[in-house]
Formats: sequence, structure tokens, C-alpha cells
Amino acid sequence: MKRSPVTLRDIAREVGVHTSTVSRILNPETRHKYAPEMAERVSLAAQKMGYRPNPIAYGLKTNRSMTVGVIIPDLTNPVFPPIIRGIENTLSEAGITTLLGDSDNNPDRQRTILSRMKSRWVDGIILASAKLKDDLVTECRKDGTPVVLINRTTNQENVLSVVNDDCLGIKLAVRHMKQLGHRRIAHVAGPLEYSTGYDRYQGFLEAMKQEGLEPNPALIGYSLAYSEEAGQQAFEPLLASGEPFTGVIAANDLIAMGVYNALQNRGIRCPEDISVSGFNDMPFVNKLRPPLTTLRIQHYEMGARAAQLLLRQMRNEENEELLVHLKPELIVRGSTAQAAKG
Amino acid sequence: MKRSPVTLRDIAREVGVHTSTVSRILNPETRHKYAPEMAERVSLAAQKMGYRPNPIAYGLKTNRSMTVGVIIPDLTNPVFPPIIRGIENTLSEAGITTLLGDSDNNPDRQRTILSRMKSRWVDGIILASAKLKDDLVTECRKDGTPVVLINRTTNQENVLSVVNDDCLGIKLAVRHMKQLGHRRIAHVAGPLEYSTGYDRYQGFLEAMKQEGLEPNPALIGYSLAYSEEAGQQAFEPLLASGEPFTGVIAANDLIAMGVYNALQNRGIRCPEDISVSGFNDMPFVNKLRPPLTTLRIQHYEMGARAAQLLLRQMRNEENEELLVHLKPELIVRGSTAQAAKG
Repeated sequence: MKRSPVTLRDIAREVGVHTSTVSRILNPETRHKYAPEMAERVSLAAQKMGYRPNPIAYGLKTNRSMTVGVIIPDLTNPVFPPIIRGIENTLSEAGITTLLGDSDNNPDRQRTILSRMKSRWVDGIILASAKLKDDLVTECRKDGTPVVLINRTTNQENVLSVVNDDCLGIKLAVRHMKQLGHRRIAHVAGPLEYSTGYDRYQGFLEAMKQEGLEPNPALIGYSLAYSEEAGQQAFEPLLASGEPFTGVIAANDLIAMGVYNALQNRGIRCPEDISVSGFNDMPFVNKLRPPLTTLRIQHYEMGARAAQLLLRQMRNEENEELLVHLKPELIVRGSTAQAAKG
Repeated sequence: MKRSPVTLRDIAREVGVHTSTVSRILNPETRHKYAPEMAERVSLAAQKMGYRPNPIAYGLKTNRSMTVGVIIPDLTNPVFPPIIRGIENTLSEAGITTLLGDSDNNPDRQRTILSRMKSRWVDGIILASAKLKDDLVTECRKDGTPVVLINRTTNQENVLSVVNDDCLGIKLAVRHMKQLGHRRIAHVAGPLEYSTGYDRYQGFLEAMKQEGLEPNPALIGYSLAYSEEAGQQAFEPLLASGEPFTGVIAANDLIAMGVYNALQNRGIRCPEDISVSGFNDMPFVNKLRPPLTTLRIQHYEMGARAAQLLLRQMRNEENEELLVHLKPELIVRGSTAQAAKG
């Protein structure tokens, strides 16, 4: 014999409260309005009695899925997993499950993932793949889907974002190079359609001027993607140009790895001949040959803050800050050294 | 004025076919029954006319979400992203979107992810986190959710799985060490509750005997997780024991990195004093100091094959092979060398 499923009313009777109280306590959106002991008593009773919400009915009625979708541009970039851990742990405390979509930098795939996520009624979206001008962000805001941008922000106004202070980061790198005696410093920029690429590039130009160094256009490469291959391709023409330089500031760690490859192919030593810095302090760059000097971003904190902003938005609570800037920290390792005597 | 949404009937009229044909072509489950040109014409028309399926009605009617859920045990382990790419690309060709859940090796979280995925009616599950005896696998099979295991399999019968030939891989590593003159070879095993840990451990014992070497129980460490930290912890007692050895076969690359750390802390050189091998050839191990000798698994192929098995199962087509074994390949790098003279 099949037992009939446990209802909210059954739980209410067991605990001795109103059915509506049970309903609101079992809904993470409203649970915080109740005293913790009461909330705990109801949850425990629901668990013991084997209560399982009917997801279809629940979805139709409250339009809540208890799921948040996170879209990342490239799962193979090791910077994202520690950021995602911050999101997962924070949402998990609120009873919400994180599901990830990997767009592989493919706009069609990103659109499909977003549409599937929304059609399954995710309660909100965290987007790590935003462009400076991003149609999908506009779309989410039009249809009222709570959305928070992470790592990359957009030019659009009033969009919740948690990003690094990319400009500050690059300034720290330029100052570090200058203190080591470097004067001719190259930059391999990331894709300028993303805020990370754009802000780090602008930060490089500003920092060079602040340090009394003239940025040399012939020493700026433009990487078409955040990848080792694209970084190498963007850097090789700088080497081939014959223009002298002793330091390279790469827009991120993967691009810096591409710089390493190009140097190695030409038998140029790092850091003896050329110093290199990256951005992100992604896992494993401390194990490279040489270990990479880079900007450590607050991976976990970034994910946790984005999740907090999203939770507030989902609860229709106001967020005081729309744009959170996290400060990066310069981590000096073996890839930067005193400039070679010219 | 809001335009009324485009219906299947509108598309049928536009293309000049029956509504049921449009419906079956737009359903990836049945699309392959039509000629590619016809399928393409219908898809293009649907796209041009701005057709968007009503996901609620669609879900209720056909119980298809066009989404497959993939559960991985640890997003921060770089071996998974290239496997997932194989899944994503294969499913994407069938019009299916991949959503990922990261259990972070937490059984409760894994259970919640699975339950949320199923309550949102994913059409199937690929599980990279299975234990040798896994309740969730049993649960999926009971309720009829199509499921394929990847990387790790289970003791349960009749479960579709795509895994590496772990036993063969370890035999290649043992033979390689023996050819370099190593006789006293240590093993740092992975968690024995997973098929990867268990099969590699058994493979080590067998291979040692086949090569005429006696495995020494004092030279076997048991790592509690597939992580750098756990690997280091499991390996340190072997070093401390004073038992002589010249080679270490680690159950995977992260454990091998833990072995590197322990050696470095004691000022023991790799490979001059001790040779080390890993398993997986995960991204970046070719950049370590020294670059790691390891078993290259067929990352992309593994993902693609699992996706193919799942698609067949979702279409109720029979799979001839239940268990696919992929052959790993030994990649020799700088971490293994001639055994130091004893």
C-alpha cells in the first residue's frame, strides 16, 4: 500500500502551529521572519515525517525552485572553482542549491543555458561571463530575474556586481616592477570587451604615467581570450618586434603562462632576462617554473558576497552597495626580479 | 501591444508540414527520425519566427527538460573540466544543455543536488562521484532516472559506466619504474571506497607481483581524499618510517603533488633521490617542478562516451556495452629517472 504523502497540514498539526506558519518556515525566502527555535522545530518535524515538497505544485504556486544558476565563461580556467565554492557554501546555508552552466565562451551556448535555467525557474542568476555591454543582463533585468554579476561587470547602470579592483591591482604590479628597476614594461591585455580586460588595460596606462614611465604602444599586446594559447599569440609579436623591455604585466595568469611559453621557446630566461606578473593567483601558479608573481584576488569572498547580494535581492531587500570592489593583494614569487642591466 | 507567442502550428504553416512533424523535430528525442535538411528547415523557421517552447506546458506534457545534470565530487580538481567539455559538446549537439552540481565530497550536498535536479525533471544524470556501493545510484535506478557513471563505477550490476582501465594504468607505471631500475616502490593509494582508489591499489599489488617485486605493506599509504593535503599526510609516515624506497606511485596527480610537497619539506630531490608518478595527466602537471610523469586518461573521450550512452538510454535504445573501459597512456616526464644506486 502506498502511503499518502505528508502535507503541510500534517506537520502543522504535529508541531501545533498554523499551516501557513509551516509553509513560510519551509520557504527559505520567509524563514528568517521566525524565531530560530521555532523554525528548527518545524524543519525537524518535516524531516522526521518524511515531508517532500511537490516541486511542480511548489514551482507553480510560489515560483521558487530553491536553485540558483551560475554561468561561468570557461570551466577549464582554474580561477573559477574557488569563487564558486564561496557561492555554493553561502547559498547552501540558505537551503539553496547551486547549479552551474559552462558557456565555453560561446554566446549561443550562454543564451541557451540562461534560457534553460530560467525556464526551470531558478530563483536567481550569478553571471561570471558578462560583457561590458551584455544583452543577457538587459534581458534578465527586463523580465525581473534577480541577477548578480561576478568578476566581470558591465557598463549598464544599476546592476549588482562583485568585482576586483582591477585598476588597483595593475597599479600594484607596475609599482613592484618599477621598484625592481624596470622601466620598459610590456602589457599583454585581456579581451577589452570584458571589464577585467578593459580596466586592467586602462589601469596599466594610468599606473605607468603615475610612476613617470611612458607606456609604449609597441609594447602592448591584445589577447583575444583568457587562455594560455591566446596569451602566447598576443605576446610573440612583442618579442619579435625587437623593441627592448625587461618586464611583462599579463592581464591574467593564463596569459602569463602563454608568456612563459613564448619566452621558453626563444630561450629567454624568466626572471633573469624578463620579469613576468599575472593576475588572479589561480590554483597551481605557485608551482610553476618559476612560481608566478601575481595579484591574489579574494576568490572565496567574491563568491560569498555575490551570493549574499543575490539572496537579499531574491528577498526583495535593498542592497546598499550596487557595486562591490574587492582589493587584490600583490603576491611576489620567483617570476619577478631586479631588472637586467640595459 | 504584446504579440501572441509563436505556436508549433504557426511554424508548421510557414514550412508547409504537419504540426506533429514540427513538434517531433523540435524534440531532440525524436529529431533524429527526420532527414537532416528537413530538421534544419524547421529549426531555422522556429528560430526566425522567435518560437520559444512553453517550458511548463512542455515539461508537464512530455516530461522532458532538455537538460542533463552532471554531479562532480570536487570542482577544484582540474581533471574534471576537460571531461565535462566532452559531455557538454556531445549533449549540445543533441540540443541538450548540461547543468553541473558540485558536491564538494559532501554526501548531504550530493543528495540535495540530485533531488533538486530530479525535481526539475532533468532528462538524465551523469554521476562522477559514485562510491563502490552508492545509495544514490540505487535510487536513480529505482525511480527510472537514466544515469551513467563516469570515471568512478560501482559494484552494483547493470549500471552504465565509462571509466579508465585503472588497473592497466598502474601496471604501466610499475613497469616503467622497474625499467628504470626501481625495486623498492611505494604506493599512495586513493580512497578505497571509490573504484579508482580500489582498482589502482589492487593494480599496484598485482603489477608488483607480475614484475617479480614484492609489495611492501610498510610502503603503502592510504590517502583519505584525492587532494594535495591528504596525499601529503598519507605519504609523510612512509618517509618517516625509515623504510628504504626509490619510487612512489601515487593514485592520482593531486596526491602526487602532496608527495612533492613532503619531499621538498625534507630536502629530498625528485627525481634524483626519489621518482614519482601520478594518474590523470590533469592540466598543468606538465608545468610542475619537475614536470610529472603520469597516466594520461582520455578526458574528452570519457565525457563524450558517457554522453552518448546517456542519450541512447534516454531514447530507450539499448546500449551494447554497459561498462566502457578507456585505456590510459603513460606520459614520461621529468619526475621519474634511473633509480639512485642503493
